[in-house]
Amino acid sequence: MAHKFITEIEPAETINDIYLVRDPILRSTTKGDLYIAMFLCDRTGQLNGRMWQASEMVYKSLPKPGFVHVKGRSELYQNNLQIVVNTITPIDPSKVTVEDFLPRTTGDVAQMFAEVKQIVGEIGNASLKALMGAFLSDKEMMDNFCSAPGGMKLHHGCIGGLLEHTHNMLRVARAILPLYPHVQGDLVLAGVFLHDMGKTEELSYDMAFSYTDSGQLIGHINKTLLMIHRKADALRAEGVEINPEVLDALGHIILAHHGQYEFGSPKLPATAEAFMVYYIDDLDAKMNQVNAAIEGEVSDANWTAFQGPLQTRLYRKRIE
Amino acid sequence: MAHKFITEIEPAETINDIYLVRDPILRSTTKGDLYIAMFLCDRTGQLNGRMWQASEMVYKSLPKPGFVHVKGRSELYQNNLQIVVNTITPIDPSKVTVEDFLPRTTGDVAQMFAEVKQIVGEIGNASLKALMGAFLSDKEMMDNFCSAPGGMKLHHGCIGGLLEHTHNMLRVARAILPLYPHVQGDLVLAGVFLHDMGKTEELSYDMAFSYTDSGQLIGHINKTLLMIHRKADALRAEGVEINPEVLDALGHIILAHHGQYEFGSPKLPATAEAFMVYYIDDLDAKMNQVNAAIEGEVSDANWTAFQGPLQTRLYRKRIE
Amino acid sequence: MAHKFITEIEPAETINDIYLVRDPILRSTTKGDLYIAMFLCDRTGQLNGRMWQASEMVYKSLPKPGFVHVKGRSELYQNNLQIVVNTITPIDPSKVTVEDFLPRTTGDVAQMFAEVKQIVGEIGNASLKALMGAFLSDKEMMDNFCSAPGGMKLHHGCIGGLLEHTHNMLRVARAILPLYPHVQGDLVLAGVFLHDMGKTEELSYDMAFSYTDSGQLIGHINKTLLMIHRKADALRAEGVEINPEVLDALGHIILAHHGQYEFGSPKLPATAEAFMVYYIDDLDAKMNQVNAAIEGEVSDANWTAFQGPLQTRLYRKRIE
Amino acid sequence: MAHKFITEIEPAETINDIYLVRDPILRSTTKGDLYIAMFLCDRTGQLNGRMWQASEMVYKSLPKPGFVHVKGRSELYQNNLQIVVNTITPIDPSKVTVEDFLPRTTGDVAQMFAEVKQIVGEIGNASLKALMGAFLSDKEMMDNFCSAPGGMKLHHGCIGGLLEHTHNMLRVARAILPLYPHVQGDLVLAGVFLHDMGKTEELSYDMAFSYTDSGQLIGHINKTLLMIHRKADALRAEGVEINPEVLDALGHIILAHHGQYEFGSPKLPATAEAFMVYYIDDLDAKMNQVNAAIEGEVSDANWTAFQGPLQTRLYRKRIE
Amino acid sequence: MAHKFITEIEPAETINDIYLVRDPILRSTTKGDLYIAMFLCDRTGQLNGRMWQASEMVYKSLPKPGFVHVKGRSELYQNNLQIVVNTITPIDPSKVTVEDFLPRTTGDVAQMFAEVKQIVGEIGNASLKALMGAFLSDKEMMDNFCSAPGGMKLHHGCIGGLLEHTHNMLRVARAILPLYPHVQGDLVLAGVFLHDMGKTEELSYDMAFSYTDSGQLIGHINKTLLMIHRKADALRAEGVEINPEVLDALGHIILAHHGQYEFGSPKLPATAEAFMVYYIDDLDAKMNQVNAAIEGEVSDANWTAFQGPLQTRLYRKRIE
Amino acid sequence: MAHKFITEIEPAETINDIYLVRDPILRSTTKGDLYIAMFLCDRTGQLNGRMWQASEMVYKSLPKPGFVHVKGRSELYQNNLQIVVNTITPIDPSKVTVEDFLPRTTGDVAQMFAEVKQIVGEIGNASLKALMGAFLSDKEMMDNFCSAPGGMKLHHGCIGGLLEHTHNMLRVARAILPLYPHVQGDLVLAGVFLHDMGKTEELSYDMAFSYTDSGQLIGHINKTLLMIHRKADALRAEGVEINPEVLDALGHIILAHHGQYEFGSPKLPATAEAFMVYYIDDLDAKMNQVNAAIEGEVSDANWTAFQGPLQTRLYRKRIE
Repeated sequence: MAHKFITEIEPAETINDIYLVRDPILRSTTKGDLYIAMFLCDRTGQLNGRMWQASEMVYKSLPKPGFVHVKGRSELYQNNLQIVVNTITPIDPSKVTVEDFLPRTTGDVAQMFAEVKQIVGEIGNASLKALMGAFLSDKEMMDNFCSAPGGMKLHHGCIGGLLEHTHNMLRVARAILPLYPHVQGDLVLAGVFLHDMGKTEELSYDMAFSYTDSGQLIGHINKTLLMIHRKADALRAEGVEINPEVLDALGHIILAHHGQYEFGSPKLPATAEAFMVYYIDDLDAKMNQVNAAIEGEVSDANWTAFQGPLQTRLYRKRIE
Repeated sequence: MAHKFITEIEPAETINDIYLVRDPILRSTTKGDLYIAMFLCDRTGQLNGRMWQASEMVYKSLPKPGFVHVKGRSELYQNNLQIVVNTITPIDPSKVTVEDFLPRTTGDVAQMFAEVKQIVGEIGNASLKALMGAFLSDKEMMDNFCSAPGGMKLHHGCIGGLLEHTHNMLRVARAILPLYPHVQGDLVLAGVFLHDMGKTEELSYDMAFSYTDSGQLIGHINKTLLMIHRKADALRAEGVEINPEVLDALGHIILAHHGQYEFGSPKLPATAEAFMVYYIDDLDAKMNQVNAAIEGEVSDANWTAFQGPLQTRLYRKRIE
Repeated sequence: MAHKFITEIEPAETINDIYLVRDPILRSTTKGDLYIAMFLCDRTGQLNGRMWQASEMVYKSLPKPGFVHVKGRSELYQNNLQIVVNTITPIDPSKVTVEDFLPRTTGDVAQMFAEVKQIVGEIGNASLKALMGAFLSDKEMMDNFCSAPGGMKLHHGCIGGLLEHTHNMLRVARAILPLYPHVQGDLVLAGVFLHDMGKTEELSYDMAFSYTDSGQLIGHINKTLLMIHRKADALRAEGVEINPEVLDALGHIILAHHGQYEFGSPKLPATAEAFMVYYIDDLDAKMNQVNAAIEGEVSDANWTAFQGPLQTRLYRKRIE
Repeated sequence: MAHKFITEIEPAETINDIYLVRDPILRSTTKGDLYIAMFLCDRTGQLNGRMWQASEMVYKSLPKPGFVHVKGRSELYQNNLQIVVNTITPIDPSKVTVEDFLPRTTGDVAQMFAEVKQIVGEIGNASLKALMGAFLSDKEMMDNFCSAPGGMKLHHGCIGGLLEHTHNMLRVARAILPLYPHVQGDLVLAGVFLHDMGKTEELSYDMAFSYTDSGQLIGHINKTLLMIHRKADALRAEGVEINPEVLDALGHIILAHHGQYEFGSPKLPATAEAFMVYYIDDLDAKMNQVNAAIEGEVSDANWTAFQGPLQTRLYRKRIE
Repeated sequence: MAHKFITEIEPAETINDIYLVRDPILRSTTKGDLYIAMFLCDRTGQLNGRMWQASEMVYKSLPKPGFVHVKGRSELYQNNLQIVVNTITPIDPSKVTVEDFLPRTTGDVAQMFAEVKQIVGEIGNASLKALMGAFLSDKEMMDNFCSAPGGMKLHHGCIGGLLEHTHNMLRVARAILPLYPHVQGDLVLAGVFLHDMGKTEELSYDMAFSYTDSGQLIGHINKTLLMIHRKADALRAEGVEINPEVLDALGHIILAHHGQYEFGSPKLPATAEAFMVYYIDDLDAKMNQVNAAIEGEVSDANWTAFQGPLQTRLYRKRIE
Repeated sequence: MAHKFITEIEPAETINDIYLVRDPILRSTTKGDLYIAMFLCDRTGQLNGRMWQASEMVYKSLPKPGFVHVKGRSELYQNNLQIVVNTITPIDPSKVTVEDFLPRTTGDVAQMFAEVKQIVGEIGNASLKALMGAFLSDKEMMDNFCSAPGGMKLHHGCIGGLLEHTHNMLRVARAILPLYPHVQGDLVLAGVFLHDMGKTEELSYDMAFSYTDSGQLIGHINKTLLMIHRKADALRAEGVEINPEVLDALGHIILAHHGQYEFGSPKLPATAEAFMVYYIDDLDAKMNQVNAAIEGEVSDANWTAFQGPLQTRLYRKRIE
């Protein structure tokens, strides 16, 4: 049976489907009865859920968060749709169609990651080479790198999105570096590879996309800088020499890659390499964002809806 | 004898050299004597010139503007250096070392233009193909395209700079288009080729770089749009069909290629192609600007001077 | 029978009235039944329409867009009102009360246009006189000029609004020009007359107000510049001399008349005439906008609702 | 003998002329000798002055500020021109050609003020009529109103400039009010008349233009509001009824007449009348500023120098 | 019986409770029947109310605004909840639980005001001492000062909020003044005490929080300045000398205490005292705003909802 | 003999004094003679120095940078003062009056640091206590903390300035924390103590104030975050537990303490503690900056010169 998506639910429907439960709370009404308030979600959105006449046992049985089978009914409450839950049962994640909850890149993850490794492998500078090796050989981090989304909303917001974005940026970098011979390619490739690595810690993406507490307090830019220094410290502890000037030039690329203060970069680009990573990142993100907006709307109209972050509608018609 | 550059002149020097005279004016002193006020220039800057005890005949003999042989002396006046002119004689431009007055691209103009024609020649869309042909076969316009600077100051500010910039942008476009298969390459290539064509009318660059009156009032973005429509009107008068939707999609790229209102674009990018041309333009300009700043300063310091338009100093040291 | 306006429709009403249908699409449900999705509109707004059990024949009979007689019923769906259509029949536009679909200026169009011609007729400069003549004798363009709205939303958003706005601006210009004797009145009057002429191409206003594709890609400012040059080219082809400096001074007024980059002007005002046209345009637009906001709300309150574009509420009470 | 203007003085000239002395200070050198540091000014600028071997008697004789006869010599000191003073003697202001120190409106002050009174006299609203009478009958304030400059630098920076500016604004208001019948003319005329009245207290303009301490701390906008309330309080004390709502509507015009927060207006325009006064003020100021820039430069060039506050050069050439 | 709060009402409920009625209007339907439109409010929000089959007599009986007992029923109309009123009867304010309509500070008003008086009493400068005395002895103004809210929404939005905010700022000022010995404490304390006094006139807070007409046109900053000058004028009329320089220094603190033009300050801080009052005000407001956001949401989540004015969500979890 | 300060040197003076030499370069003239270009500095500024007829031996003897005894003469060259060096001899730093080269706090360093330790010692949270201990027991870092300036220019720009600023901020925090009982004092005190610790690495201040390469590429905000994590890693390696949530809350304070993106903070304050540290930092910096501007100018005028960063002149006169 096809999953009933959150955005497809209308008032007064019978509900009998699997959803992700988040933030369940056990409360008591003014009369003293216990009830559970919760959010029920899938990849299209979330609704409030209310289970009246609940018990502490049911509450304790719930994953926080996790997948559950819900039976109940939708209703309008104060002009907002909510789900009145009759029964709620935890479901083993292995029985869930993950794609109903998290969109996934259409690219081939293994092939993309292989090409990433190959391009990064071309780096010659000794300090950078050692550093890249430390990242590439960190199995857990690379698994996260291959799973994390590229962002929450604007672009590459899917499982594998970070890899897809980084992979394409590396290909762009390799394509244009020969046209700018004064630019230090090793720095650009290393900067592109690592530029958003901190997103693996900033975002949570096992059941739904959200920010981690630590990610929201510190941000992926600074987390990436910390990762680089931690890897360098570990290499030095093993006796591998890492040139501090190389580390600063690379760190500067990370800190400056949003290009402007108002986009959260604490430093403005001050090297050709930092400028190049900033432009490649912005270009690849915008190409993905524009394409997603044009392809994402079911419409025959020549124009998409207004795109807030771009401050314009997008023109969809192709030339002939 | 080597040319004495304007920025090399110190107070109380004897002057005996060729300069460009601009804006000469014949005036009379309070005592009734005639004198000529003028600017004397070369590619490094300009100084006020004053010829006392001048005559109307001398004034009439001067090119306005043009090259002159000046004999005189430098002096400080109100803390500003000026040249007191004893004799001033028009010089035939053919006898002038043009490079003393206008910097020139270090690239090979013929080869760059040949490659531009070749890349633009790959465009397949019928309307764009006809339009590109009309531009490429306009001998006078192409001569200007090969001579004009890319800008007054920030980037590619040299004879042949517009060609150098456009040529490199076309190479970047061709390198990355395969990585963005949904982007319409014909539009991008046509947009890159024409994006700054109006600079041939906006700027004056026969003896020194300056804005034309018309260029300053109308701007190169709008001049380019007028050029495109004039070419299309002429083709239509000859019976060649030009799809108006193609014209609008191309015109939009031109209008939006500065990317933001505050940089003089009257339209924000609303197509993938407009975004791509904007990013390639900005990337190529910044790479040139950063490199020029780093190479342009005679200094062993690790940092350049503060770069106003970039709001930072630039780091010059290369990694090891 | 009075028209039931879109904003007056409540849930669960019987619908039997004429509306404008836009963007109808034929789709099939998951079960394979055909249905038509569409927008139903009048001058007060639009609603989603759904015709279930539709046929390709009905779909083909629909104007896209155009007027239709709709029978059906309103209902709430996911908290949004929509119309379930039972029958839908094309209606001849001649049978439609146009005012139900497009608001119309309360001014006397013939009289306003006569006064526009009279004031513009006072222009003495030969080039401008010839150019104004070319516009005024273009019957189709003048018909559009008398019908087009002054804008989509903010001010003069009604049939005839462009004429009403231009007419009043010309009267303001004529009233204050004697107080600024150094300002070139011919340029100001020509600039005012033409300043928004491109809106006749930027906007569509036969059945509802919207942007044309071309208008949204190019914008009315640049369309006006193209119109002026096309008229000048045609005059020159007929042997009429048009001073290019006059054309540039006029073109500059058009390009600069929004006064600031962020309002879509690619040039900042650089002549007294460009400043004057900018101020008269802004003043007349704001007077219309403020008055419309104050008169437009049915309320006895001393203050209007918050006006987003003005960043304030407006005070309605008059002094005694 | 013609006055030697500050900007005309070159190094190593003999000085023997009248200047305005400001901020004289008596100091002692490291050796213990007394000297006087001071500024010497006229309407073209100011220079540092130094009188070595000064005495306390000379210092005490100096007006602070005031006119003095200076004998001495100009010299360069650390690249700045200064005047070494040999003798310095106070001069009676009556013996000074005031125009050497303060530029003066070219308009006819008596005639302008008469017309101001006549236009303001047309106000019919009782509260405003009484209030206007209180201002017009305040002899000292009206004398200041006829003398004060319109501003320090940008526009109407001359003795009588405030009157000239207000007078022309009143004529503009009267010319366009009939075209906006819903606008309350009485409020507009009163608002225009008083809009900058606080400049009579904000600025000092007896010997040179400067800000008063109080003016710089409080500003002319707020000073004007205080003046209006003080006049209203006085009228009420005499038994004249002043409608507080009228006072607020008028006060709002004053507070909002710079139109935007960043130009020092603590309130944004919220009435048609406040918008109109803002536009008339800005229009008249810009017309004066543009004309002054175009006429003020001695140049045959088509363009003025770059105008910082306008962010552009101005085009000077007139059409033919 | 507990009050049914506006935000607790669901569709199709029976209403039988006390609310505040605002802006009632008597209108007639198209059929000619009379009805009353009104707003019904309490401290949690407001809803539209409609009384069909109303009479002029009922309309005249209504307070405008005031408390009423309403019987009727809630219903959805065009997706908005409204109350259909069957009977509506004025209620004496003395019978109303005021806390249902206006939140109230949790602090002890008498104690806070006593401490305010004590701290302000430490001011030694004669002019300021006299001025403070004039304010403190104005019984009506001090009653208002103890009742007024600190603001409409962002911070201290409760009865007594202005006192609570001012009281805490005075304590902060007293705590840090010893650490900045060059700052003139008398000016800071006087500035803090009076900084928002104009809110007593800007806001209306007898039955609900709203802006007065006068408050919205003039603003509390300018109203405070007028209050200070009126008090000073009165003292001078009684023969008490008030140093005008002290008045300007104090007035400057008031005008500059929002710190930036865009927050409605017509002057930027130009004294150490003005800076200090600005910082203390901003600190105390933000501490209140942050705490209210964190405490105000019923949630166990680590983060609050997005806070528009702060452009971030707030982190609620405490460290261990 | 008193040091001749750079800003006191006039043209054509004999120079015989100690200066700091920076960036000396050995070059050859067009004739082939060797010369040395260099900067000569003290705490008041720097001048170009030129030693003609130099030798490689002299060049090699120079510290780069370091203190030297210079004999020579000042002269004007292209309107800039420069020093023509006859002899230049390295000087042992111990023989230099350091105060001539670096301004120094007027506070008592030992006493301030003792009080810092005492206040920081009051922190009770275990993780923070351990972390503070690790910083306080790092002898080299604490020496730097006691020497570093608070900034390059705006505030506390002197040896010991960072300590002075941090010390005063801690005192302010301690004074106001009791007034905000919901704020977690441990976090505020730790945040204040460490907020600018990265300046010890960002700035160089042994002979003159400048940015280090690393400091300019990475910035003190990010350097501080790296320091904190390095200390925490070291503690954990020793078996001390550091709560990662405490680390994130502290790191957030550091990242957000500039309060706004445009001031280089990559995160906006999202906790009460982050807001408080931001306000205390800004207050203390501004108090120092305002006082320095008012005290720093030798002038009897009521107003300082225009202060660019504050966008105003400052009023110096004290009330009576």
